[in-house]
Amino acid sequence: MQPMAVVLLSGGLDSATCLAIARRDGFNATCLAVDYGQRHRCELDAARQVAASFDAELRTVRVDLRAFGGSALTDDLDVPKGRSEQDISGSIPVTYVPARNLVFLSLAVAQAEVLGAQYLYIGVNQLDYSGYPDCRGEFIESFRVASNLATKAGVEGKPLRISTPLIDLTKAEIVTLGTSLGVDYALTVSCYDPTEDGLACGSCDSCQLRRRGFDQANLRDPTRYA
Amino acid sequence: MQPMAVVLLSGGLDSATCLAIARRDGFNATCLAVDYGQRHRCELDAARQVAASFDAELRTVRVDLRAFGGSALTDDLDVPKGRSEQDISGSIPVTYVPARNLVFLSLAVAQAEVLGAQYLYIGVNQLDYSGYPDCRGEFIESFRVASNLATKAGVEGKPLRISTPLIDLTKAEIVTLGTSLGVDYALTVSCYDPTEDGLACGSCDSCQLRRRGFDQANLRDPTRYA
Repeated sequence: MQPMAVVLLSGGLDSATCLAIARRDGFNATCLAVDYGQRHRCELDAARQVAASFDAELRTVRVDLRAFGGSALTDDLDVPKGRSEQDISGSIPVTYVPARNLVFLSLAVAQAEVLGAQYLYIGVNQLDYSGYPDCRGEFIESFRVASNLATKAGVEGKPLRISTPLIDLTKAEIVTLGTSLGVDYALTVSCYDPTEDGLACGSCDSCQLRRRGFDQANLRDPTRYA
Repeated sequence: MQPMAVVLLSGGLDSATCLAIARRDGFNATCLAVDYGQRHRCELDAARQVAASFDAELRTVRVDLRAFGGSALTDDLDVPKGRSEQDISGSIPVTYVPARNLVFLSLAVAQAEVLGAQYLYIGVNQLDYSGYPDCRGEFIESFRVASNLATKAGVEGKPLRISTPLIDLTKAEIVTLGTSLGVDYALTVSCYDPTEDGLACGSCDSCQLRRRGFDQANLRDPTRYA
């Protein structure tokens, strides 16, 4: 029997690649999508399609982060467009959602514990990222330690392992690897401000990082731009 | 201006005492209740009444932990009744909700960050408790470290502090302290299996711990039993 893993799936490029890697690594992957009240609802449709393309189960958990406010991804704040490369990597932008990965990982730990899964995959990346502190390796490692003190599984000698296979890859390396593993990036949505039909704006931080990744990898960018 | 604190408020005895302590400590407390799909909905009413009795703001965030299953507090599993003192403290029971405090604390961190609060109060207790691993001090400390690596506030030099004023108190000490701080325990609900009107069963682990606390403190138990 294949070992089980929970894969956090956002519908974006990174997490889709992460799912492909979990499958390559021989795991029976259960995907977890988090409906946190994001403005860009097409992410959740993308997650469904990506999971289906790998014939993986998708579970969705709802948590209303809008109740807290404070982010352009959940509130009526403007998503920054056309920022320079320096600006993108330089500071924490308004698209930061307070404690998002902390909340997502906690939910994934709960799901993993109920399923009896000892592996959790998350597609965080500390190179081509938007300056979010909760994407860094030192946070993930610290969270792993904390989570194994919190759970019955951790206490009873079945600690959870957290895989971050993308953490030190460039966006170009990620799309190259994902393409070799059969990821259909046309299904994924990275844009912070897509149209209702899921067309990407092309100029938010996330679109720029994605576009540059395909460019540098010499791969065709299948993104549907508005 | 009073410093701000987020207080996790469940509607139970411990968190109500915790709120009273945060107020005594001079904080402007914003309470956070988590609607996680608990079977005993009267908890949320109790949280509202407790917050109101201290004239504190209450916010409620919804996260559907039922999506994961695996606990008597969210599923149709039987709540254990009439267990011995040894059994209660000896193993992790079916009322354990996978990763609950991990999820609750993560949500509280998000709320604190949005409010700009640097203090978080949680009424965990590692003496008279139900054997849940996520109530122990070593988990809380480890979580604090992880959370400060995850947030913009933590990275920018405004780390969150987590207060656990009940952690080494007996239930008797908790109710004695709370009574001296004006907690109206008649408003609180501890029972894992209350009636629809919020009457306590008197025999689940939580009722037994609570009843014993009032007994040992020589205080009148205001709990409304079925």
